[in-house]
Amino acid sequence: MVEKHDIVIVGCGAGGATAAQFAKKTDRKAQVTIFESSPFPQYSKCGIPYAISGEIPKIMDLIEFSEEWFKKARIDLFLNTTVTDINSEKKIITAKKKDGSIIKKQYNALILATGANPSLPPIKNVYKDNSKKLKNNIFTVRTIPDAKKISASAESGRKATIVGAGLIGLEMADNLHKKGLKVTIVEALPAILANILDDDMSKPILETIKESVSVHMNTFATEIKTDKDGKINTVAINKKDEDDQQEIPTDLLIIAAGIKPETSLAEQAGCKIGSTKAIQVNEQSRTSKKDIYAVGDCTEYVDFVTGLPIPIGLGSIAVRQGIAAGVNAAGGTYNLPKGVLQTATSEFFSIEIGSVGPSLQTRNDIETVTAKYKGLSKPEYFPGGKPITMKAIVDLKTGNVIGAQAVGENAAQRVNTYATAILSELHIDTFKKLETAYAPPIAPTLDVVTLVADVASLKWHRKK
Amino acid sequence: MVEKHDIVIVGCGAGGATAAQFAKKTDRKAQVTIFESSPFPQYSKCGIPYAISGEIPKIMDLIEFSEEWFKKARIDLFLNTTVTDINSEKKIITAKKKDGSIIKKQYNALILATGANPSLPPIKNVYKDNSKKLKNNIFTVRTIPDAKKISASAESGRKATIVGAGLIGLEMADNLHKKGLKVTIVEALPAILANILDDDMSKPILETIKESVSVHMNTFATEIKTDKDGKINTVAINKKDEDDQQEIPTDLLIIAAGIKPETSLAEQAGCKIGSTKAIQVNEQSRTSKKDIYAVGDCTEYVDFVTGLPIPIGLGSIAVRQGIAAGVNAAGGTYNLPKGVLQTATSEFFSIEIGSVGPSLQTRNDIETVTAKYKGLSKPEYFPGGKPITMKAIVDLKTGNVIGAQAVGENAAQRVNTYATAILSELHIDTFKKLETAYAPPIAPTLDVVTLVADVASLKWHRKK
Repeated sequence: MVEKHDIVIVGCGAGGATAAQFAKKTDRKAQVTIFESSPFPQYSKCGIPYAISGEIPKIMDLIEFSEEWFKKARIDLFLNTTVTDINSEKKIITAKKKDGSIIKKQYNALILATGANPSLPPIKNVYKDNSKKLKNNIFTVRTIPDAKKISASAESGRKATIVGAGLIGLEMADNLHKKGLKVTIVEALPAILANILDDDMSKPILETIKESVSVHMNTFATEIKTDKDGKINTVAINKKDEDDQQEIPTDLLIIAAGIKPETSLAEQAGCKIGSTKAIQVNEQSRTSKKDIYAVGDCTEYVDFVTGLPIPIGLGSIAVRQGIAAGVNAAGGTYNLPKGVLQTATSEFFSIEIGSVGPSLQTRNDIETVTAKYKGLSKPEYFPGGKPITMKAIVDLKTGNVIGAQAVGENAAQRVNTYATAILSELHIDTFKKLETAYAPPIAPTLDVVTLVADVASLKWHRKK
Repeated sequence: MVEKHDIVIVGCGAGGATAAQFAKKTDRKAQVTIFESSPFPQYSKCGIPYAISGEIPKIMDLIEFSEEWFKKARIDLFLNTTVTDINSEKKIITAKKKDGSIIKKQYNALILATGANPSLPPIKNVYKDNSKKLKNNIFTVRTIPDAKKISASAESGRKATIVGAGLIGLEMADNLHKKGLKVTIVEALPAILANILDDDMSKPILETIKESVSVHMNTFATEIKTDKDGKINTVAINKKDEDDQQEIPTDLLIIAAGIKPETSLAEQAGCKIGSTKAIQVNEQSRTSKKDIYAVGDCTEYVDFVTGLPIPIGLGSIAVRQGIAAGVNAAGGTYNLPKGVLQTATSEFFSIEIGSVGPSLQTRNDIETVTAKYKGLSKPEYFPGGKPITMKAIVDLKTGNVIGAQAVGENAAQRVNTYATAILSELHIDTFKKLETAYAPPIAPTLDVVTLVADVASLKWHRKK
């Protein structure tokens, strides 16, 4: 006899919706209920910059699974409904609907997919008077309402300033630039994409970006200046360790300075919060609290290579955690790999990038050997080959492949090959001999994937 | 004290030239001599179809390493010089120059890179009277002179018939079609690309190809019919097991029906010839005869998965064998993986294909589980996603990934990911959890690479 699974999911983002879907796949009789505080069923947060430029024609196209879809899948979805309390002893959640009415619901398994909130750096005068609401024309990039407001603001505004040169900051810069706005990027760190690429890989990208937009590195946005009607006028910026303040004329300001995991419900339920201030989960997406799972941006898991805790900020990982939580909550067994590979990609200003493995900051305590190679996507004699630069990262002690970064043609798929090598804990001497697919219009006899591995192997043998 | 390496290489194709280069890399003082019977230094055979259509602007662009390059690399290259004899006891080769003069040369290590000759199916009347030379306007696709002659013939001719629907046959069909010729393909087997793709993967490609060119499957070309001046007029074809003969009006005929390894020198030297009629080599590219290596199309090596002998017909493998032979011949140590993965790709009629692992014919004695998945290159909500169909092949006994096939967007790079999994002998249950790179303009959260692996895993668990 199979026990009936009564599964409650808090949050209908990518992680929560995937968990619901896989719970149902695992046990068709499971009762699955999702509570979502916004009015929207599952949509793509990552697609927002492209819906603002119009590359995705309509903002509502971002919705991946409609209310109708959840109905057909026999998943109970409550929109506009905020979970306010978890009683983890009695296994009851309390939720409040928009009309003020209260729902109480028992669960066998609870899946927290509460996401994250934008981090806001200390910029003076960003909030409306006496509130925690951002002034008009100051935005973060996280929700469909954000998308709608930025879109409207970009129609009338001509000058945009973006705080933060991570993935979302650069994606927004590119998409606003495509829309014809004059864009300025302000980044506090000395490098763009610091969590994704090493400095030597990101520097040439920065040079390319500067051809299209203004970029201020090592610079803080310090204050919003408004005109006498309270309308945003300029952003004051300060270069690090310099006194001079500069003012950037700005019609709209985008803050893309990272996220803070939303953990208040988890804390209340007694789930352990880790060193990255996110909910600790294991390879089954279980929290420290029995029968409570967590997935996506509200969680931390460990890095595959270093074993160190990593805040989860990627939709691709949220989906995989969702699979694990859904299957396990419904009585199946699904173990994720021993850590996350952090495989990532994006494209901006016509540059594709890819990355896998721990970032420079988090691999600090591993001695590594790195190699870089600039190649072409096709044999030299074949017209139209496009440049690719790849970096391979090897653990000095073991000789295993632990990371790769790529800038250029098919960076994402090339990095996926390295992701497979890392997942397999493959030695660089084995990987460099990988027989890659070759045909003149497609790829050279030795793909840059293996050419960079070959250099890394040589350097490893010299240094080990 | 390092012994001086005197290395002789027979043949300056991709394998031979790579061996020379890596011998020099391994021991800068090695004396390396290449004898090449043609007038050309190393050029790309695989590029020939594209030089005929003009996608590669000039036929001589196919030359990858010039005589000048070899001179700079201090490699002695003798063009127009045919090795006629090997004395493997005394380690002396005899070569004949174009002017009839004879060279005798001692070696410490000999590398045979003698390539292959086109296979000619039994078609009546293909040869000029009393010779083994093909009639005017009947061609194979292997050499620069072939390319020049086909190019000239395609300028005046309007109708081309191609015998053989393997990679080269289809590449030629596409390139002649692009040049404006009316193309007919005649294939003896019931499927195109039989060595590369399973029937279920190749069938939709065949349907697409038929929109551009005529294709006769299960059909033999039986006879060339000429007009009274001896000019080729039609090709007679016969459908298998049917009596009716049909005549295809033809100005030029391309025969692309596979290759026969050129092993006469190897046989004379006493090297063991394997079951595929090619020179047997091991993971160091050594033949059975001490100090004689062989690389490329003249050799056979074993398949990584089945361990069965495989004739080497891919430039990518020739290059890797060249690395091994060059390094080992010059006193280094370089072992290839325990077998070839047979990673392959091509593109014709705007369809990219990729394949890795043993073909259906050669994996006959392994019980397998296969899965197929049709996906898109981007998330569904993102405009411009292109279709990809992938097939994953799993060993029923071990559950390991042993092959993959792809048709569509970035088929080659997607197949490289599977090549890494095969090289790592990775279990499908591990591989399906691969964290692939995701971003809306680039790839979906779960790439088709993992989606097809997931189906394969499910099917494997059901069947095992």
